[in-house]
Amino acid sequence: MKRAALVESILHKKSYLCTGIDPEVNKLPIHFPKHPDSLIEFNRNIIEATLPCSVAYKLNTAFFEQYGAKGWEILEQTKSFIPKNTFSIADAKRGDIGNTSSMYAKAFFDHMDFDAVTVAPYMGEDSLRPFLEFKDKWIICLALTSNTGSKDFQHLEFNQKRLFETVIETVCKWGNPDNLMFVTGATQASELSNIRKIIPEHFLLVPGVGAQGGTVDEVSTHGANDQIGLLVNSSRGILYAGNGEDYAQKASNAAKELQSQMQTWVEKLS
Amino acid sequence: MKRAALVESILHKKSYLCTGIDPEVNKLPIHFPKHPDSLIEFNRNIIEATLPCSVAYKLNTAFFEQYGAKGWEILEQTKSFIPKNTFSIADAKRGDIGNTSSMYAKAFFDHMDFDAVTVAPYMGEDSLRPFLEFKDKWIICLALTSNTGSKDFQHLEFNQKRLFETVIETVCKWGNPDNLMFVTGATQASELSNIRKIIPEHFLLVPGVGAQGGTVDEVSTHGANDQIGLLVNSSRGILYAGNGEDYAQKASNAAKELQSQMQTWVEKLS
Repeated sequence: MKRAALVESILHKKSYLCTGIDPEVNKLPIHFPKHPDSLIEFNRNIIEATLPCSVAYKLNTAFFEQYGAKGWEILEQTKSFIPKNTFSIADAKRGDIGNTSSMYAKAFFDHMDFDAVTVAPYMGEDSLRPFLEFKDKWIICLALTSNTGSKDFQHLEFNQKRLFETVIETVCKWGNPDNLMFVTGATQASELSNIRKIIPEHFLLVPGVGAQGGTVDEVSTHGANDQIGLLVNSSRGILYAGNGEDYAQKASNAAKELQSQMQTWVEKLS
Repeated sequence: MKRAALVESILHKKSYLCTGIDPEVNKLPIHFPKHPDSLIEFNRNIIEATLPCSVAYKLNTAFFEQYGAKGWEILEQTKSFIPKNTFSIADAKRGDIGNTSSMYAKAFFDHMDFDAVTVAPYMGEDSLRPFLEFKDKWIICLALTSNTGSKDFQHLEFNQKRLFETVIETVCKWGNPDNLMFVTGATQASELSNIRKIIPEHFLLVPGVGAQGGTVDEVSTHGANDQIGLLVNSSRGILYAGNGEDYAQKASNAAKELQSQMQTWVEKLS
C-alpha cells in the first residue's frame, strides 16, 4: 500500500487505530471450544466488527507460532480476512544477515502479502535492506519499545545520543517516509516530541495504549504530525473487551471508543 | 540438553561442528524436483550424512518461513530427523515484550522441542527472561554478528565499551553458562579474545566459517576455552558441497574436513 492510500484511509475513517490480533485460546470468550481452530472464527469476527474504526491490523506472529505449522495456517487465514484496502502488519520483529532477511521478506511480502513487517535493527543495514527492495511494502523498525526492558539498551547514550535515537537517524538513511516507519511505545509518550524532531514525516507505530498504560491523547499530543503520522495500536483492550457471546459487539465498542478520541485529532487537521 | 551432555558429545565426536540447515529449493542437487517438499528428503539425508561429525544442527527459520505454513511443516519434519542426543538450535532471532516472548519460547521449546533458540537483545531483559525459564533449554543471544551490518550499531561505543560488549555483560546477569550462549561471528575472529575476557565460560555459537570467510583455526585460536566452549557453524559449505546424486557423500566429506581441523583442538584439551 502506498502512503497516500494510508493517509486517505485515516481521513476517511477519522481514525488511526491499528487493531492488534494477538489471540490466545485460553482467553477466548467462554462459549468457544478451547482449540486453536477456534481462533479462525474469533479473528474473523473481531476484524469484521472493528473494520469501520480500524485503518490497520497488526498480527503478532508469536501468538500463531506457538501452535507450530497449524498456527501458521491460522495466521495465513487470518491475514485473508483483512480487506486489501486496509493496512496489514506482520508483527514479526525479524532481522538476519542479508541473504536470510530476503527469505523473511519473501515470507511476509510475497507469500502472505502483508503491507508491512516489523524488524529489529541490531544486525544493521544488510539485515533491513532486502525488505526495502519490495515496491509499496514497508518496514517498521523497532526504535523505542513499550516494555520495561527498553531501558536496558535503547537508552544507552553515546555522543550525546541514545541508542534508539541513533537507530532512527541511521535507519532513516536506508529508507524514506514512503517505506519506513518506526515502533515507538506509548508508555514513553513524552519521548515522541524528541523523536518528531528527528523524523517529522515518518509514520510511527505506537503500541502500549490500553493494557500497557498509554493514552490516545498523550500519544497524539507528542507524536501527531500534519498528516497525523501515527498508527496507534490496541490489542488486548479490544480483543478481550467482552468474554460472552457479545464479544464482537464489545470489541466494536472498544474500537469505537478509541476511534472517537482519534476523530478529534483528525478533524483538527482540516 | 544439559551443558555436560553437550561437552561430552564434543569430546566423543572430537568435533564442535554445528551444521546449518538453510535449504533453498533452487540450490538443490539437480535431480531433485524443484518443490519445497524435496527439502524433506534433502534435509534428512544431509543430517544422516553429517551426523558422525556434527554435535549440533542449526535450522534457520527464514528458509522455511518463505513457504508459509507448508514451510513450517517442513521445519517440524526436519527437526524430527535430529536425534535427541544431538543439540538442536532454532535460528530464529526472536525477541518481543515479555508475554509475547513467552509464546515464542512455547513455539520452539514446547511445541518443537528445540534445545536452543537464537534471540535478539534490542528489547532488553523482559524479552529474554521467558526463554530462560525453561529447564535444560538455552538462549543464544546475538552479540557480534558475522555480517557487514554488524558495524552499524554493535560497534557503537559508550563508556569505553562497544554495544556488543555491553550486551554480553548485561545479558550475562540474566542467564548463566548452563542456559546462555552468544552469537559471535567468525568474520571478526580477533574479537573473540576480548569476548573471552568477559565470558571465559560461556559457549559461543560462531557462524561465518566457510562461505563468509572465517576459518576453524582462527576461531579456535581466539575463542576456545578449556572445554572448547565453541559451536562453529557451517551451512552452505556443507549443504552445497555437491550438486549431483552424491551430494550427501560430498556433504559428509565437507563436514569431515571441518571435523578433522577441530579434532586437533579437542585433543589438545587432554
